[in-house]
Amino acid sequence: MRAENSCGDNTAIILLSGGLDSITVLALAQSQGYRCYALSFDYGQRHNAELESAKKISEHYGVLDHKIMTLGLNNFGGSALTDNNIAVPTSLQPGIPVTYVPARNTIFLSFALAWAEVLDVHNVFIGVNAVDFSGYPDCRPEFIQAFQDMANLATKAGVEGKKIQIHTPLMALSKAEIIKQGLALGVDYRMTVSCYSADAQGRACGVCDACRLRAEGFRNLGVADQTRYV
Amino acid sequence: MRAENSCGDNTAIILLSGGLDSITVLALAQSQGYRCYALSFDYGQRHNAELESAKKISEHYGVLDHKIMTLGLNNFGGSALTDNNIAVPTSLQPGIPVTYVPARNTIFLSFALAWAEVLDVHNVFIGVNAVDFSGYPDCRPEFIQAFQDMANLATKAGVEGKKIQIHTPLMALSKAEIIKQGLALGVDYRMTVSCYSADAQGRACGVCDACRLRAEGFRNLGVADQTRYV
Repeated sequence: MRAENSCGDNTAIILLSGGLDSITVLALAQSQGYRCYALSFDYGQRHNAELESAKKISEHYGVLDHKIMTLGLNNFGGSALTDNNIAVPTSLQPGIPVTYVPARNTIFLSFALAWAEVLDVHNVFIGVNAVDFSGYPDCRPEFIQAFQDMANLATKAGVEGKKIQIHTPLMALSKAEIIKQGLALGVDYRMTVSCYSADAQGRACGVCDACRLRAEGFRNLGVADQTRYV
Repeated sequence: MRAENSCGDNTAIILLSGGLDSITVLALAQSQGYRCYALSFDYGQRHNAELESAKKISEHYGVLDHKIMTLGLNNFGGSALTDNNIAVPTSLQPGIPVTYVPARNTIFLSFALAWAEVLDVHNVFIGVNAVDFSGYPDCRPEFIQAFQDMANLATKAGVEGKKIQIHTPLMALSKAEIIKQGLALGVDYRMTVSCYSADAQGRACGVCDACRLRAEGFRNLGVADQTRYV
């Protein structure tokens, strides 16, 4: 969790979805002394409530810049999050769930890499988690390591010997442990939206995987969640 | 150059810029028996002439589907190709030139990976080239290998043991050799635009790196290029 950077610089790009995990990552990175840029994506997801949250969070934490990139992954479809013909499941399924968005984290990290290269920043933070990871292949530590290896070959920074680091401070934590860390850093989780199917006011459905994992995390920690439900 | 695929399937996604290299890759893949999808990007580049070419080429070759994804990399800037405040150089420069678009091939391949995952396609073709590569780090074989390794950890296909292959049939060829291969396959290079600064009619400047490399390729092969210049 300690800030490690071979270049000694103290700037970072934070992938900020507007959810519980990414606000915690931002708070953690700031607590470690990083000056942060925030990067969000309008990728064709079902609702924009989490992007509204990402904007508020970016303002609240005074990030250096916040960019929202529009990707249109709904053009490809293939996921319940980007294709309205595929329903969001209301119970946990075995295997890789239909809410998996093909190559989403690869794409998100690639954009972070591009911006990092332009800004001459060498640290990227992402709130992936291998414990409550919902079966997504691109949340596993071996994927992150492989992306970092690739990133250092893909870039001018890498060619020039500057080491790009992908930080995953939540990787080994349970949802309850993530919330505990965030609360210790003063995170206000009312600012976040976790639900896959939130309505326009950011109110959660209470039955999708993301809602269940969040509720379970607060319950396991013995802390009240102030999520607003439909 | 032989079609190799552990799954024995014969579909592929071709990254199609509308330039000389990518049309050759498409022709090569088809000649190897692949049924091809084409993927292009409106990434905030200086002109749309190459996208018009990509559309015509896709029609000409009867691809299964052609998608143009809009990325807005000009939001990041940092390259002469995406930032109008940085001039396109008119002579070859040492080192990594300002026409390098940070992490562009990483982003392009990530989108190809996403579409491949949705389509259940396991072959991606990209026309990168380490000989005339203009100093871009993301055109080197070690980058492609690292991307492929990452891709097989990032995806459902990878988890299920299907091997994703990134094919780079032009990697070791000179521009003249690429053109020679294409001509042998009947490629009509009048359909392509190579210039970084082409005008709305697709006419080339004749002085940028891309124009110089193209002209040199035709000259070395002893074949007339029918590029239209401004």
